[in-house]
Amino acid sequence: MAWWKVSSAGRDVNPDLASERENPSFHVETLINILDGGVEETRVRRAVVSAIIKDPIFSREYIYFKTRSERFEGAIRNTLHMKRKIKEMGWDENGREVEHIYRALGGETALNIHNIFMKTISALGTDEQIAKWIPLASNYKVLGTYAQTELGHGTYLRGLETTATFDPKTQEFIIDTPQITATKWWPGDLGKSSTHAVVLAQLYSNGKKYGMHPFIVQIRSLKDHSPLPGISVGDIGPKMSFENVDNGFLMMRNIRIPRENMLSRYSQVLPDGSYVKKGSDKINYFTMIAVRVNMLRGEVLEALMKACTISVRYSAVRRQSELKPGDIEPKIIDYQTQQQKLFPLVATCYAIHFTAQYVDKFYHDVYSEIRKEDFNSLPELHALAAGMKAYATEICSNGVEVCRKACGGHGYSLYSGIPSLYTKVTASCTYEGENTVLHLQVARFLMKCFAAVQTRSPLPASTAYLSSPATDACTARNAADFLDPEVYLTAYEFRAYSLIASAAHKIQNLVGSGAEQYLAWNSTSVELVKASLAHSHYLTVKIFISAVTSLSDQPEIKAVVKRLCDLYALHGIFTNAGDFLQYGYLTGKQLDMATTAYLGLLAKLRKDAVLLVDAFDYTDEQLLSALGSYDGNVYHNLLEWAHKNPENKKVNPVFETYLKPFLHSHSSKL
Amino acid sequence: MAWWKVSSAGRDVNPDLASERENPSFHVETLINILDGGVEETRVRRAVVSAIIKDPIFSREYIYFKTRSERFEGAIRNTLHMKRKIKEMGWDENGREVEHIYRALGGETALNIHNIFMKTISALGTDEQIAKWIPLASNYKVLGTYAQTELGHGTYLRGLETTATFDPKTQEFIIDTPQITATKWWPGDLGKSSTHAVVLAQLYSNGKKYGMHPFIVQIRSLKDHSPLPGISVGDIGPKMSFENVDNGFLMMRNIRIPRENMLSRYSQVLPDGSYVKKGSDKINYFTMIAVRVNMLRGEVLEALMKACTISVRYSAVRRQSELKPGDIEPKIIDYQTQQQKLFPLVATCYAIHFTAQYVDKFYHDVYSEIRKEDFNSLPELHALAAGMKAYATEICSNGVEVCRKACGGHGYSLYSGIPSLYTKVTASCTYEGENTVLHLQVARFLMKCFAAVQTRSPLPASTAYLSSPATDACTARNAADFLDPEVYLTAYEFRAYSLIASAAHKIQNLVGSGAEQYLAWNSTSVELVKASLAHSHYLTVKIFISAVTSLSDQPEIKAVVKRLCDLYALHGIFTNAGDFLQYGYLTGKQLDMATTAYLGLLAKLRKDAVLLVDAFDYTDEQLLSALGSYDGNVYHNLLEWAHKNPENKKVNPVFETYLKPFLHSHSSKL
Repeated sequence: MAWWKVSSAGRDVNPDLASERENPSFHVETLINILDGGVEETRVRRAVVSAIIKDPIFSREYIYFKTRSERFEGAIRNTLHMKRKIKEMGWDENGREVEHIYRALGGETALNIHNIFMKTISALGTDEQIAKWIPLASNYKVLGTYAQTELGHGTYLRGLETTATFDPKTQEFIIDTPQITATKWWPGDLGKSSTHAVVLAQLYSNGKKYGMHPFIVQIRSLKDHSPLPGISVGDIGPKMSFENVDNGFLMMRNIRIPRENMLSRYSQVLPDGSYVKKGSDKINYFTMIAVRVNMLRGEVLEALMKACTISVRYSAVRRQSELKPGDIEPKIIDYQTQQQKLFPLVATCYAIHFTAQYVDKFYHDVYSEIRKEDFNSLPELHALAAGMKAYATEICSNGVEVCRKACGGHGYSLYSGIPSLYTKVTASCTYEGENTVLHLQVARFLMKCFAAVQTRSPLPASTAYLSSPATDACTARNAADFLDPEVYLTAYEFRAYSLIASAAHKIQNLVGSGAEQYLAWNSTSVELVKASLAHSHYLTVKIFISAVTSLSDQPEIKAVVKRLCDLYALHGIFTNAGDFLQYGYLTGKQLDMATTAYLGLLAKLRKDAVLLVDAFDYTDEQLLSALGSYDGNVYHNLLEWAHKNPENKKVNPVFETYLKPFLHSHSSKL
Repeated sequence: MAWWKVSSAGRDVNPDLASERENPSFHVETLINILDGGVEETRVRRAVVSAIIKDPIFSREYIYFKTRSERFEGAIRNTLHMKRKIKEMGWDENGREVEHIYRALGGETALNIHNIFMKTISALGTDEQIAKWIPLASNYKVLGTYAQTELGHGTYLRGLETTATFDPKTQEFIIDTPQITATKWWPGDLGKSSTHAVVLAQLYSNGKKYGMHPFIVQIRSLKDHSPLPGISVGDIGPKMSFENVDNGFLMMRNIRIPRENMLSRYSQVLPDGSYVKKGSDKINYFTMIAVRVNMLRGEVLEALMKACTISVRYSAVRRQSELKPGDIEPKIIDYQTQQQKLFPLVATCYAIHFTAQYVDKFYHDVYSEIRKEDFNSLPELHALAAGMKAYATEICSNGVEVCRKACGGHGYSLYSGIPSLYTKVTASCTYEGENTVLHLQVARFLMKCFAAVQTRSPLPASTAYLSSPATDACTARNAADFLDPEVYLTAYEFRAYSLIASAAHKIQNLVGSGAEQYLAWNSTSVELVKASLAHSHYLTVKIFISAVTSLSDQPEIKAVVKRLCDLYALHGIFTNAGDFLQYGYLTGKQLDMATTAYLGLLAKLRKDAVLLVDAFDYTDEQLLSALGSYDGNVYHNLLEWAHKNPENKKVNPVFETYLKPFLHSHSSKL
């Protein structure tokens, strides 16, 4: 067993970290259960994680030393082995275990878009298409990808240029990449794995254009994996992270596919070339929302939780400089500036956790309605998911980087485990909807809601506050008043309302003075993004407050989580003070009080900080961090990992080739 | 010649980029000369850059595909070739060309700390030591490093644990790593190159401790490069970037070195073990400041300038979505949200450029004074350099990442050129003084200055504003008033003053109510960091304003640079609104006006944006970006680079080993 796999039982816990766990103010295991959603959920999660990390085939031990090709190969191996493992362990392939497996593997899997390929066929294919393709795909007899994004077109789907032209003579579609901007670009699994692709293309039939539709196209030989004639396909090359994924490009020159390869559950081209729409495909819109909902907890929050675990533990072990003259070097976690970097992020983890839970529940509620053909809540769900995706990806990505820098020089080493978290999670700001684009979609929803207030139309619950804005300024008289959730929630409500109202008025004024609507919108878009952010921020505070309330039967846990909620809210006021002051809700003096309350909370949370990240319950193998191991043997870890580096075992070719000719030969002189 | 080296003359400029350069409002070449510091400086820079990029040995063509080992080997090759090239071209090894060479090589060099090794010996060695070591080192007959940082100790030098104990019997020092936290960790060139190190160690002689001193220690054999007995040395392993640098670790077990190997210009151990101090080593303090001054322009600003060039050009080529209904997809640079991401950063490049120039001049002025034994300005220089290092590294690192995200999905590809800029420049927030530590040092200086006001002691020029704070609130009555530099400079002055005064009062109050000084300081440190930031921010605005004034004989250039200055200042007010509102300098309404002025500037700078980054005058080979080439053939570049990827030429081993056994054999069925 590798040294860094030795469990905490095998090595002494660094006394500096052990002391942090003495006399806890709450029962960590209880908090773990709460985060998991119950004792049984904790048990299941731990059982899966344990089975995965004990399996040597899944080992990530040498991952920081691997090349891109090795990472890709390892991911393929993991994925194929995972299928066997699921069977062997008797897990349900569609059960709750699967999420835990993926998380335990730290993302080192491949063929993830192959799953999207299957989901797309299941959702958009006819029963016959499903019957034909799903058995092949689920046994890896074909490997698929989902090819939508093009070199020149991402977010704006209507702009996609790949064409599918129906030829009634042969009953085929001709799939074509008319110019290089139409090259499919980015699809995962396309670079080196896929044999087939669901290609999104503009449908033409009988000289008419029918918009985007999905087509199954074979791109590589099943025998020798070589590209089929007319196909140009390959890997798009290195990225900031995701070394394990073979993102690819695809050009198709007049590729002919049978009519049956157009996925036809909702629309079809008949043999004579006529186009038939069948029912509403509104529900498909839902898939995109589902992805955004799922990524919150699985990808985005996960990264921040790990980074917080690592940086808080390290801060309790690392000693530096002088606080009290003459004393030994203090733990860096005792510096207020370090607390200010990390504790609000720990609080953010809890905020986003409860928010993700809330959004997930809302999603499932709406899903039930939609199955009853009730689409009323879809716009609200869309706005909620889009807003939270944009809000959480930004705050979590930035937060991971703050954690990394808070670890000083060692944070820059891959061994800290944080650089690879950052370079990966930052991608989430762009994929599944670029954040600025999403904020502007949310803003459009907010503008509609704001307009609905004028016409006294009913508002969705999440924007109900727009109809009854606070009319009085904040009444807080001292710092302690800011620990009242009512006080800060009203402040957030007022802020969101003011920014939304201000943007709406600006647009009205511009249009009123003759500007075209689209120009007025563009000239207000910076403020619209701010308004969207403020709205999502307000919702997270509101959701966090109700989560605290729901903990009433656990007074000790409730006390510490309440503190986190206060900290999260007051940190937001401290860092966005302008919004709270500008519209007169807070005075400068009240902001001083809020700041005092905020800084006071940092000191109060000091003793619970390590316990609060222990409650995220990551194993050392999941963190893969020399700085963040449970036992805090930081320096020992770093040194051991350096010795493991294969580079240190190889002969150094640079010496022989480059350095030796120069070096002084009479070493005795020195 | 590789396709991406084809100059703009060889390919048509993308019409979308060409149109941006039509009818310029100013002469770009003139602005280039101003940034370079004169026509002749532009000529020299271009001559050097051209000679370097034309030399095939220096080619960075395949850099994004290389492994760490290949990057390191390439850097060694570049460095050795550079020495020959300098001779061949007749350049001065200590002349202005050298900076241009390093920048043209994009940092792909090695043996950089070998230079620090030599500088340290030259500064701290006796004449005999210099005469012995410098000739050996300058001809690479020995390869040195500078070993200061330890596993357990970075910023706080007094905490270093390596010991050097004098043994009068043998006239040797015994250099020892007493525990693993004392392992030297991070020194560049140590991992795979150095034969010698200047080791910083706690000096002990005759049982007395004398603090940190530098010692020359041989660590590897000059014959076969193997570690000497008692030495454990190697590469610390992969980092977030700097693949070309072999950062290393070093443990020394009772290594004996002759008494002559202690660098003894300023202090010496005599044969009997007695310790002698010779003169003041205050001037050495200066070296650290010099590094911070130099990194501003050379490393930090460079990254932001390149990222701005890439993202602004790309934004003028990339088209997306819909602005005016029915129109073709607009350039993304026409969206206000995109302008708001990029234009303030272009303005920041100019701000930091003029600031770096100012700091550099100030540094040289103080240097002249110090040579006359006048150390009066040293504290101000230290605060200025530390403050600007912390301010600029943070703002530039964050800015590079904003540029990257503003390029959407393609920004995440290494081909964009931005990920590698970010992962590198972000390190500057930590090295050469961790930013928070530096801000607190600046704050200490500011607190002293603030106290000096009470005692009517004279103040250094950079803090003179503390003695005459603005007493009236802002008088601006409309948005246009905020384009008056006097108006925004006063606002910045007021903000810095208020934050400094507020922190000082808080400390006074805490101490007054019985807190110990060190606790009062720690409890105020979040506010002290804010005060330091506000002070540096104010100075950059002030310096920018005088730079604009100095352009009076170039009215067209002055007009556009003035706009950048306004934008820089108003962007800072927009994003830090709380500070300007809290102390009552601006009203909420005035902030609205400032915002209107700010957003108005974005639209006004739109037509100059590409020209303003063209003025940074980077060649395509320096940018190494598929998105940022001068001719804007973005999609062509991306596709060509993907085809160059060696991975796409290799046989795919994953197919044979892993995928083939699964794939469907009867392809005819499909």
